[in-house]
Amino acid sequence: MNEATKKQLFSKLAEKQERMIEIYRYLHAHPELSFQEENTAKYIEAFYAGKECDIRTHVGGLGIVVTIDSGKPGKTVAIRADFDALPIQEETGLPFASKTPGVMHACGHDAHTAYMLILAETLIEMKEQLEGKIVVLHQPAEEVPPGGAIGMINAGALEGVDTVFGIHVMSQMDSGKVFYREGNVQTGRANFRVKIQGVGGHGSSPHKANDAIVAASYFVVAVQSIVSRRMNPFDVGSITIGSFDGKGSFNVIKDSVVLEGDVRSMSEETRTLIEKEIRAKLDGISAMFDVTYELDYENDYPVLFNDPEMTAFAAAALQATELPGVEAVERCEAQPPSEDFAYYAKERPSVFLYVGATPKDGEAYPHHHPKFRINEDSMLIAAETMGTLVIDYLKGSSEK
Amino acid sequence: MNEATKKQLFSKLAEKQERMIEIYRYLHAHPELSFQEENTAKYIEAFYAGKECDIRTHVGGLGIVVTIDSGKPGKTVAIRADFDALPIQEETGLPFASKTPGVMHACGHDAHTAYMLILAETLIEMKEQLEGKIVVLHQPAEEVPPGGAIGMINAGALEGVDTVFGIHVMSQMDSGKVFYREGNVQTGRANFRVKIQGVGGHGSSPHKANDAIVAASYFVVAVQSIVSRRMNPFDVGSITIGSFDGKGSFNVIKDSVVLEGDVRSMSEETRTLIEKEIRAKLDGISAMFDVTYELDYENDYPVLFNDPEMTAFAAAALQATELPGVEAVERCEAQPPSEDFAYYAKERPSVFLYVGATPKDGEAYPHHHPKFRINEDSMLIAAETMGTLVIDYLKGSSEK
Amino acid sequence: MNEATKKQLFSKLAEKQERMIEIYRYLHAHPELSFQEENTAKYIEAFYAGKECDIRTHVGGLGIVVTIDSGKPGKTVAIRADFDALPIQEETGLPFASKTPGVMHACGHDAHTAYMLILAETLIEMKEQLEGKIVVLHQPAEEVPPGGAIGMINAGALEGVDTVFGIHVMSQMDSGKVFYREGNVQTGRANFRVKIQGVGGHGSSPHKANDAIVAASYFVVAVQSIVSRRMNPFDVGSITIGSFDGKGSFNVIKDSVVLEGDVRSMSEETRTLIEKEIRAKLDGISAMFDVTYELDYENDYPVLFNDPEMTAFAAAALQATELPGVEAVERCEAQPPSEDFAYYAKERPSVFLYVGATPKDGEAYPHHHPKFRINEDSMLIAAETMGTLVIDYLKGSSEK
Amino acid sequence: MNEATKKQLFSKLAEKQERMIEIYRYLHAHPELSFQEENTAKYIEAFYAGKECDIRTHVGGLGIVVTIDSGKPGKTVAIRADFDALPIQEETGLPFASKTPGVMHACGHDAHTAYMLILAETLIEMKEQLEGKIVVLHQPAEEVPPGGAIGMINAGALEGVDTVFGIHVMSQMDSGKVFYREGNVQTGRANFRVKIQGVGGHGSSPHKANDAIVAASYFVVAVQSIVSRRMNPFDVGSITIGSFDGKGSFNVIKDSVVLEGDVRSMSEETRTLIEKEIRAKLDGISAMFDVTYELDYENDYPVLFNDPEMTAFAAAALQATELPGVEAVERCEAQPPSEDFAYYAKERPSVFLYVGATPKDGEAYPHHHPKFRINEDSMLIAAETMGTLVIDYLKGSSEK
Repeated sequence: MNEATKKQLFSKLAEKQERMIEIYRYLHAHPELSFQEENTAKYIEAFYAGKECDIRTHVGGLGIVVTIDSGKPGKTVAIRADFDALPIQEETGLPFASKTPGVMHACGHDAHTAYMLILAETLIEMKEQLEGKIVVLHQPAEEVPPGGAIGMINAGALEGVDTVFGIHVMSQMDSGKVFYREGNVQTGRANFRVKIQGVGGHGSSPHKANDAIVAASYFVVAVQSIVSRRMNPFDVGSITIGSFDGKGSFNVIKDSVVLEGDVRSMSEETRTLIEKEIRAKLDGISAMFDVTYELDYENDYPVLFNDPEMTAFAAAALQATELPGVEAVERCEAQPPSEDFAYYAKERPSVFLYVGATPKDGEAYPHHHPKFRINEDSMLIAAETMGTLVIDYLKGSSEK
Repeated sequence: MNEATKKQLFSKLAEKQERMIEIYRYLHAHPELSFQEENTAKYIEAFYAGKECDIRTHVGGLGIVVTIDSGKPGKTVAIRADFDALPIQEETGLPFASKTPGVMHACGHDAHTAYMLILAETLIEMKEQLEGKIVVLHQPAEEVPPGGAIGMINAGALEGVDTVFGIHVMSQMDSGKVFYREGNVQTGRANFRVKIQGVGGHGSSPHKANDAIVAASYFVVAVQSIVSRRMNPFDVGSITIGSFDGKGSFNVIKDSVVLEGDVRSMSEETRTLIEKEIRAKLDGISAMFDVTYELDYENDYPVLFNDPEMTAFAAAALQATELPGVEAVERCEAQPPSEDFAYYAKERPSVFLYVGATPKDGEAYPHHHPKFRINEDSMLIAAETMGTLVIDYLKGSSEK
Repeated sequence: MNEATKKQLFSKLAEKQERMIEIYRYLHAHPELSFQEENTAKYIEAFYAGKECDIRTHVGGLGIVVTIDSGKPGKTVAIRADFDALPIQEETGLPFASKTPGVMHACGHDAHTAYMLILAETLIEMKEQLEGKIVVLHQPAEEVPPGGAIGMINAGALEGVDTVFGIHVMSQMDSGKVFYREGNVQTGRANFRVKIQGVGGHGSSPHKANDAIVAASYFVVAVQSIVSRRMNPFDVGSITIGSFDGKGSFNVIKDSVVLEGDVRSMSEETRTLIEKEIRAKLDGISAMFDVTYELDYENDYPVLFNDPEMTAFAAAALQATELPGVEAVERCEAQPPSEDFAYYAKERPSVFLYVGATPKDGEAYPHHHPKFRINEDSMLIAAETMGTLVIDYLKGSSEK
Repeated sequence: MNEATKKQLFSKLAEKQERMIEIYRYLHAHPELSFQEENTAKYIEAFYAGKECDIRTHVGGLGIVVTIDSGKPGKTVAIRADFDALPIQEETGLPFASKTPGVMHACGHDAHTAYMLILAETLIEMKEQLEGKIVVLHQPAEEVPPGGAIGMINAGALEGVDTVFGIHVMSQMDSGKVFYREGNVQTGRANFRVKIQGVGGHGSSPHKANDAIVAASYFVVAVQSIVSRRMNPFDVGSITIGSFDGKGSFNVIKDSVVLEGDVRSMSEETRTLIEKEIRAKLDGISAMFDVTYELDYENDYPVLFNDPEMTAFAAAALQATELPGVEAVERCEAQPPSEDFAYYAKERPSVFLYVGATPKDGEAYPHHHPKFRINEDSMLIAAETMGTLVIDYLKGSSEK
C-alpha cells in the first residue's frame, strides 16, 4: 500500500514538473540576498494561500513554517528548503538569468524551493493517505552566518518534530543519482579577526619600535603547525588566513596589523582544538614579541552530523523504492562546505542528502560560480526522494 | 695672515647675523617640496644678482652653482647647502611658521641656505684675500630619492672641484659645538617592492590554491636571519618591511601579496650583501612554495664616507681656530639617517660635518618632527665653520 | 551445499582449537626478529610434513608457499599470515612469555600463523569438497621495510593467484566482531634522512660561517606548511621529523645537521605530493641559506587498498554466514599503521580484514606495547572468517 | 728625567730580549689548561725568588700578585699578564712546540708572561727611580669562564690599586704597531642551555604527542628576530645556537630537545636586552606549543670598557715616547672576542691595549688556530709599551 502511495505521488509530481520548472525559473530571475528575502518569502506565502495547511510566517525572521496534518496519529517529519541567493553577478546567459545586478541564485536554493512547493502541494492533496504530520521549513539566509536555521529553531520551528530531512542539488554530482553518507558529512566552521598591536617607528631604528608585521608573520607561520602537528591526521581541518592587512609605508615600521581567517573541521573536537590552538599561538606571539592582540573568534555553523540510523533508514528506503529517473542511490564522500542544516541535526536525529544535478551538456560549474547551472530534472528527483522519505517515515509511525 | 682673514670673516658674518636670520625665517615660512622648489631657487638666484660671481641655474634640475673666483691660482673647494622641505604639517607655533599647509622645513635646510647665502656674499666681498676658487652648491631635493645631488653632479657641478664640504645643523646635538667623524658616517639605503604571486582559492581547499599570505609570511620570517646571521655583527644594517599588503576576504585564499621594504647599512659591503640575501630569500620562497615574484630593488643614497685625511684636516683646522660661539669641536658617533651628500663624497674626497643646534629652551624635537626647531645662532656657527674650512683649505693651495 | 561445507569446517576448527592455542603459545614463547625467522620457518615447514599439499620454502627469503589443490577447476585464492616478531622486551607476565630477551610477538603474528596452520590443515582434509586452489602464504618480515611480501611476490608467490585475503587480530577492537572497510584502509609510508651542510665557524662571527642549525630549523618550520596548506584536508597525511642531530659546542657555529623523518599518507597522491613538497622545501632552504643537502628518500609500504568489489563480496559472505562466536561483521574506520599486505593488494584485487581480539579481562594494550595481549578465541574466529572467504570465493568459481 | 728613565728601561729590556724569548719558548713548550696551570704558577713564583718584591701566591686560585714598592709616595698601577693555554693540538711545527698532547698556547699568553717577567725584573732593578707602587697580576684561566680575574679581584688583588693596564699580542695586527681604542672594545658574553620538553609519541599520531623538535625549531627561528628587530643596529650583538641536540628515531616524535647557545654584545644594554628577549622567546614558545623549558643562562665576561681618559693618557704617552721598534701607535676597531680583563675594568678605570705580532713570514693564523704563531719581537714592544705606561703614570703621581 505504501508503494501505491509513492507511485501516486511520483505520478502527480511528474504531471506538475512543468510548473516546478516555472517556479524555479521565476525564483532564479528574482534572487534576494540572505536576510533580505522579503519578496521570495511573500511569493512562498502566496503559493500556499487557500491550501489545506497551516502557515506560519516570520518565524525567526523571514522563515515560513507550513504544517500539513494528516489528521491521523503518527510522527512529525520536517522537510527543509532554503531560499536565499548570493552576492554574485550572474554569467550564465540563461534566458531566465537574474534580473538583479550582483545577486544570483548560484547555489540552487531556487531549485530547493521550487521542488519543495510542488511536493508540499502534492502532499497536501494526498494527506488523507498519510499518517502523522509534515512540517515544511522554508528557510531564509543559509549562506550568511549566523544563518536562518538557528532563528527558526529558536522561534519553535522544531516543536513536536521528530526528524528533519534536507536535500541539496549538486551541480558536480552525476544527474540521475542520489547520495547519502552517515556521520559527519559537512564541515563545521569558524571565523576570526585579530588585530596585532606593536609600536610604529622609523625603519632605521627597529629597537625603538616593535614591528607588527614581523610579529604577525611569525603568527602565520606558527599557525601552520596546528593542522600539521596538533590535529588528528584522520580528522579534517583547515585554517586559512585570507586577509593580512598590513599596508603601510616602506620605511616606517608598522604599528599594527589586522588578520582575518577561516577555520573548517569535520568534528567538533577538531573545531574546539583549533580555536584553543589559535589562541595559544596568539598568546605565544604576544609573549615573544611584546605585542598585544584583540581577537574576535566566532564559531558559526557546526559540523553537519547525519544520524547513522536515520541515514540507514533513508538509504534503505530510497534503494528499495523505484524512483523514476534515478539510476542509483550511493554512499558518497563528506563534503568540504559548511551548511546551517547542521543546527537542525544538532536538535533532532536528521539526514541531509544530495541529488546529482550536472547539467545535461556536462558543463558542471561549481557552486558559487557565476556560471553555476543545474539540470532542471534534478528537482523532480529531489521531490521524489523527499516524498519517499516522508511517506516511508510516517507509514505506521503511530505504532513505532 | 690666514688668521687675520678668518677673523675678518667672522667679524663680517657677525655683523650680518640679523640678515641671516631674516633669510632663514623667510625661507622657513615659504617651504617647497623636493623637486618642486621653484620659488626657493628663484629667491637664491635673485640673492646673487649683481654680485661678483658666476651663477649657473637649472643645474641638473633646480640646482644653482655659484662660482667665486679669487683670480689667483689654487684649488677649488665646493661647499654645499640643500634647500628642499618636507610634506609635514608644521606644529611649532613659530611666528614665521610655514604658510603652506602640509609643507614644512623640518630638517633645517632653510638654515643651511640662509647661512650659505650670507657666507657666499662675504666670501665674494673678501675674494681678493683668497686663493683658488669656491663653488657654492645650492642643491634641491635632498629628501627624496634619487635626490638632487646626483643630477647636479651629472650636469657637471663638480668639474674642476677638488673637495666638497657640507654641514648639517642638528637639533639634538648641543648648541655651541661642532662635530666630525671620519669614515662611514651616515647609512646607505635601498628600498624594494616585491609582489609574491600564488594562486587564489577557497579556504576549505588549500591544496587547489597556493596561499600567497603564507609564502610572504615565511619570507618575512626568513629575512630576519639576514641581519642576525649573514651580517658582520660589527657592521650596521637593518631591513624593515614596512608594508605587507595582503588585504582580502577571510575565507578566500589570497592569490598575491605586495611587500615594500627599506634597507640601511653603514658599508657598501653590507648594502651589497643585504641585496644579495634578499634575492636569495625570495628565490628560496619561490622554490619552497612554488610562487613567483617580481622584485623592484633600488639602491638609493650610498653610505656617506668622510675622507679620513680631509676629516683630519677639517678637525685640525677647526680645533686650531678660535671660532666665536664654539665651545668644542668633537668627534661624534655615526648617524642613522641617509644623506645624498654621499654622492659628492663618492666623487671627491669630502667631509660632512654637524653643527649643534639644540634650541635655547632645550626642547629638542628630532628632525622630521612637526615641532622641529633649531637654535638660530647655529647658523652663524655653521658659516664660521664653513668659512674656516674654505680659507684654510685654499690657503697656499696653489703650491700643494 | 556451501553452507554444509562451512558448517563442517567450523566444526573441525572448533575441535582443533586447543592445538591452535598450543601452537600460538609455542610461537609466542619463541619469537624471532624480521628477516631472521629461521626457526619459525622450520617449524611451519615441519607442520606441513606429510600433508597432502605442495610446499615451497625459501620463497623470496624465508617465505613458505603451501598450495592446496582441490583437483577441480576453479579460481586460486591466496591467504596470508605473517610470522615475524618485534625488538621489544615482553612485560606481559604470561606463562608462555617470550624466552628470547628483547624479542616479542607484540603484534599478533604468532596468532596469525597458529590459526592459519590449523585452517590449512583442515582445508587439506576437506579439499575434496572444494574447487580450484588455495595458496597459503606464510610471510616473514612484515615489521621491517622493505618487508617480506615484496620478496615473495618477486619470487612468484602470486603466480596464478586471483585474489589475496589477509586478516589481522586487533587487541583494541571488540572480541566477537569482524571488521572490514573498502578502499584505502591503512597508510602508505616513506622515510627520509637529510644532511644539511653549511659552514662552521666561531659564534662571534656568523658572517664568516653559515649556520646549519638555523637553516635546518627553518626547514622544519617550512615543512609544517605541507600538511597545512598543500594537502587536501580530506586526505590523511603526516610528516614527523623524529631526529634532529645537531649536537655541538655552544659557541661554535654548527657546520652540518642530519634530520630523519617519517611520512604517512592514506593515498598514493598524497604520498607523492609530500615527497615532492619535501624536496621543494629543501631546494628552498638551499637557495635561501646557501647550504647544500643530501637527501635519502625511501618510499616503503604503499597505501593498503581493499578492492571495493572484493570487500563487498567479503562483507556479504561473512554477514550471510553464521560464524560461531561472531556477533557482528561491521564496517570500520581506516587504520593509522602501515602494512606490507599492501604489496599483494597492488598486484591482485585483495581484501585485508580485522578480527577483534580485546583480551577477556578488557585490558587492551596497543600493538607494539610490551604488555600487548590478545583474546585467544580470536584465532578461532579468524580461522572461521578466512575459511568462509575461501569456500565462498572458490564455490562455483570455475564458471565465474 | 722621565725620558731618561724610559730610555734606560728600553736599553735594559733590549739586553734581556734573549732571555725573554727563552722564557717564552719554555712556556710555549709546557702549556697548561685553564684552572690547572700549577707548573706555570710555580715557574713564575720561582722567577721572583730572591728579587726585591713582595710575592703573594694562590690569590683567588693559582693567581700570583707581585708588588714592587718604589718606597716613595704615589699611585699604584697594576699590570696584568695571563698564563693559561688552550685544549688544542698544536700544528705549528715549531722546535719549541707543545710537549703536551692536545694542549697549546694558541693565544699568546706565554708571550704575555714572558715579557711581563722580564719587565717586572727590570722595574725591580729600577725601582729607586720610580714613584708609588707597581702590582704585577699574573692571572690564570683567562680562557674559561668564570675566568681567573674575578677570583683574584675577590681575593683582594686590586686593593690600593688605582688603575690596571693590560696588553694582548695580536697575530693578525701588524708587527711594529701598538693599538688602542677607548670605550667598549671587546664584547661581553653570555651562554645558555635550555631543555625544551614536549611529549613523545608515534609519528603517525602527532595529536597524541607534542613534538619538541618542532617547538625548538620555531624557537631557533624566533631568536633570529632579536638581533634583527630588537637590537639597536648601531650596537654589536650576536646569538649563536651552537648545539641542537635532538637525535632520535625517524618515526618517533621526540619528547625533548636540548639547545646550547652563545651571546655576544658590545654594550651591557644589549647584553641585558638579549637575555630578556631570549626568555621572552622561550615564554612565547611555551605558550604556543604547550611545552615547558628549563633555562640555564649565565652572563660570563662583561663588555671590556677602556676608560676614555685613561686611554687618552695611554695613547698620548705612547705617541710621545720614542719606542724602539714601534712605527705607529694607532686607534683600532673594537674586537669580537671577549676578555676577562673586563672585570678589572669594571673595578678601576683601566686600559687594554694591543701589540701587533704578525709573524715575520707574514703567515698570520688567527688566535685559537692550531698553527697560531707570533713575531717574537712583539714581546719586547709589549714590555716597552707597558713600561712606558707605568713610568709615565707613576711620574709625579704623588701630586696628582
